[in-house]
Amino acid sequence: MLGTRGGWRALRYCSSSLPREQRVPAARLRVREALGSREAADKVKVQGWVRSVRSQKEVLFLHINDGSSLESLQVVADPSLECRDLTFGSAVEVQGKLVKSPHKMQDVELQAEAIHVVGPCDTLSFPFKIKERHPLEYVRQFPHLRCRSNALGALLRIRSEATAAIHSFFQDNGYVHIHTPIITSNDCEGAGELFQIGTSQEAKESAEKKHFFNVPTFLTVSGQLHLEAMAGAFTRVFTFGPTFRAENSQSRRHLAEFYMVEAELSFTESLQDIMQVMEHLFKTATSTVFSKCPRDVELFHKYVAPAQKGRLEQMLKNKFVIISYNEAVEILKQASQTFNFKPEWGCDLQTEHEKYLVKHCGDVPVFVINYPYDLKPFYMRDNEDGPQHTVAAVDLLVPGIGELCGGSLREERLPFLESRLQRLGLTDAYQWYLDLRKFGSVPHGGFGMGFERYLQYILGVDNIKDVIPFPRFPHSCLL
Amino acid sequence: MLGTRGGWRALRYCSSSLPREQRVPAARLRVREALGSREAADKVKVQGWVRSVRSQKEVLFLHINDGSSLESLQVVADPSLECRDLTFGSAVEVQGKLVKSPHKMQDVELQAEAIHVVGPCDTLSFPFKIKERHPLEYVRQFPHLRCRSNALGALLRIRSEATAAIHSFFQDNGYVHIHTPIITSNDCEGAGELFQIGTSQEAKESAEKKHFFNVPTFLTVSGQLHLEAMAGAFTRVFTFGPTFRAENSQSRRHLAEFYMVEAELSFTESLQDIMQVMEHLFKTATSTVFSKCPRDVELFHKYVAPAQKGRLEQMLKNKFVIISYNEAVEILKQASQTFNFKPEWGCDLQTEHEKYLVKHCGDVPVFVINYPYDLKPFYMRDNEDGPQHTVAAVDLLVPGIGELCGGSLREERLPFLESRLQRLGLTDAYQWYLDLRKFGSVPHGGFGMGFERYLQYILGVDNIKDVIPFPRFPHSCLL
Repeated sequence: MLGTRGGWRALRYCSSSLPREQRVPAARLRVREALGSREAADKVKVQGWVRSVRSQKEVLFLHINDGSSLESLQVVADPSLECRDLTFGSAVEVQGKLVKSPHKMQDVELQAEAIHVVGPCDTLSFPFKIKERHPLEYVRQFPHLRCRSNALGALLRIRSEATAAIHSFFQDNGYVHIHTPIITSNDCEGAGELFQIGTSQEAKESAEKKHFFNVPTFLTVSGQLHLEAMAGAFTRVFTFGPTFRAENSQSRRHLAEFYMVEAELSFTESLQDIMQVMEHLFKTATSTVFSKCPRDVELFHKYVAPAQKGRLEQMLKNKFVIISYNEAVEILKQASQTFNFKPEWGCDLQTEHEKYLVKHCGDVPVFVINYPYDLKPFYMRDNEDGPQHTVAAVDLLVPGIGELCGGSLREERLPFLESRLQRLGLTDAYQWYLDLRKFGSVPHGGFGMGFERYLQYILGVDNIKDVIPFPRFPHSCLL
Repeated sequence: MLGTRGGWRALRYCSSSLPREQRVPAARLRVREALGSREAADKVKVQGWVRSVRSQKEVLFLHINDGSSLESLQVVADPSLECRDLTFGSAVEVQGKLVKSPHKMQDVELQAEAIHVVGPCDTLSFPFKIKERHPLEYVRQFPHLRCRSNALGALLRIRSEATAAIHSFFQDNGYVHIHTPIITSNDCEGAGELFQIGTSQEAKESAEKKHFFNVPTFLTVSGQLHLEAMAGAFTRVFTFGPTFRAENSQSRRHLAEFYMVEAELSFTESLQDIMQVMEHLFKTATSTVFSKCPRDVELFHKYVAPAQKGRLEQMLKNKFVIISYNEAVEILKQASQTFNFKPEWGCDLQTEHEKYLVKHCGDVPVFVINYPYDLKPFYMRDNEDGPQHTVAAVDLLVPGIGELCGGSLREERLPFLESRLQRLGLTDAYQWYLDLRKFGSVPHGGFGMGFERYLQYILGVDNIKDVIPFPRFPHSCLL
């Protein structure tokens, strides 16, 4: 980080290289540290990309950014150091002296002694223009360059911190991390549209040809079933990886490739325990992200979703609401609002219903539990409150998004699971899954959280395509 | 972790739920803590799977394990508590009192007051037998159950810790984590066999039908090119995710689905800087893993690869060796050994060559740098030591494995890259990649490390199929 080449000390001007505890407030700690030593501050080399150039008669101002924080470093130079290539978007290396800034907006600035343009920028064809705030829809067209915009830069730093926070949460709570497979011969839910895998060779030749894996294979829609196998050894396990849906949906909440956080807990007999982990995960990760990158988060809460901040702070303090599916249907039936889909026991909750429920409960996260048996996949646990009446399932609905997490107790009783799989004609395919119930089966359950929807919610980002580095959706797979 | 249900305190007997610093030595810290308070130790409930049952006239001994550590907890009970279902592999809940153990091999044991078999185990059809050490090849046939064996249990706990250690290494050094895409319309290397993606629908209908993404798409072989785009904004980035090869190889070092750690650094002009990060990553992660799960690692170093321990400790202390490709060829030419492939400047190093080089250098990790231009992919930086003579590439070879990491400086100069892509007829496909050189291009480089090979090396595991939870290889995609 701090190399010494030719007597110059290379310096990243933000603190992301510091131990985690010291990273807040996010910027300039390292620079402050350098200022503490005269020698260190006197011969400093800073590298980054030019975010602004302002040439006055007596002085040249530059802002340069190396992506380690939202804030750029101000460089003050003699106008004689200006050159043709020193433009918005160019990469530069500046040597000089770090000093206290006379301006209120920044702690330090760099008094340049030499400016070297490392890589010029063809500003005419560069899709971003200086000092313009480009809409998210516009920058989305340039997936290889949009990380250089303030919004996507902040977003991806937050995504990185959120990823770390989620890993830490599980590790600190005794979970073993499992890489569940991406290519699978299972179809987890018996539903959902799948991507199928072939080799380039197979595609060229006839489809009759033998599969690479001997059997048809798909991109995973969930790591749950594989996690269940692991929970039978490690008690608590989690996975955090890509999952896929071949759904032809252009909604602002769906992607063909997205990330899921999934956890599975053995020796768990109540949905309460699962909900507790969901709520704890959500609150811990969110608090961590807010405290690790306050400036980046502020950008969204200030410019993208101004109402979000207060709401989220409130939400972090209160317990999430819990209602049963029965109660949900009653609430919807008594609503003065007319729905496109008439609320009826036994029918799925539609987006309009979810929205109403969340609003009805005070615009807070709401757990809905105990869904009708026939609405849910085969692995969910029969509540035995009637003949195949409800299962121990839970969905977490949040304002602005709808379903953020889904979970359940799993059917651990061999006869129940066997008869359900038999009715579905899936006994042979899931022999291995039945095995888990033959050899030391235990009550267990788990959940999955859509990582992109989580980011959408905490930052108030409207379109899911703006919270993932390279969005994949119908008709689009850029790069 | 420590619930109180019906007056009993549920207890996991290992320390993995403790703050990370306290996790070493791995087992029993929590139990010791409980012993500190009489009340806590008096009414304890432990859940897990039975690893052994030994019934004597006066006393019944059980060992139960919940996957949080290699060690099981000894339960001492009155023989009257035995029942038919209390067998190897069954799941149990034991209530009782935690006491100091009179035996040297363990700190504590549980004096049982009640034993409840939560889930029996059909021992006749259970593929693992009590007290037998099953070979890795045997347990590999049961991917849904093998995590319950000592070896795979230890392996997967180590894999989880290694994953965490790698994430921490990069985060502590100021890297932004990027989820590079799994589905891509690029073919990173222009080489390597690819898996192609279709929808189940497309497969059924004609291949003429429109693609889901409008263009042919593949499973990624590397996140490098996407990382390069990100390094142009964040300076330092890393990714750690699944990558794929449709190669029909049954070798003990290849999988169709495997994990890669990849990093990319901007403002980097020398291979030395890249090698330093590679070496630092390797050593930091390895030291962390060895100190976080000493007992699990010991299992491998004692029973699987007895010679590995001393060698690795030595390796962690010494600098890795660096030789050039030129030197490597000279060494091979002067070797007394006869090779199947004659060593010749301009030819790829074969496995037999890699083995010899590693041995020649003292059975230590060896960086080989500056490979012939024509051997390497288009994005590697021309060293200009002759007309298209060598590129700034590096491979890290390690004993027993061969290539563990590969890296290079990337060609950041637009004219060099343009002419190379033109010769390959790839200019149109890589327009976006050329863009990165038009808008603030900087010297940069990076590397990738095969995560499974890394685990193979540090643990001395012969077959790569034994270091991943669900191995995928030609003709096999179980579960």
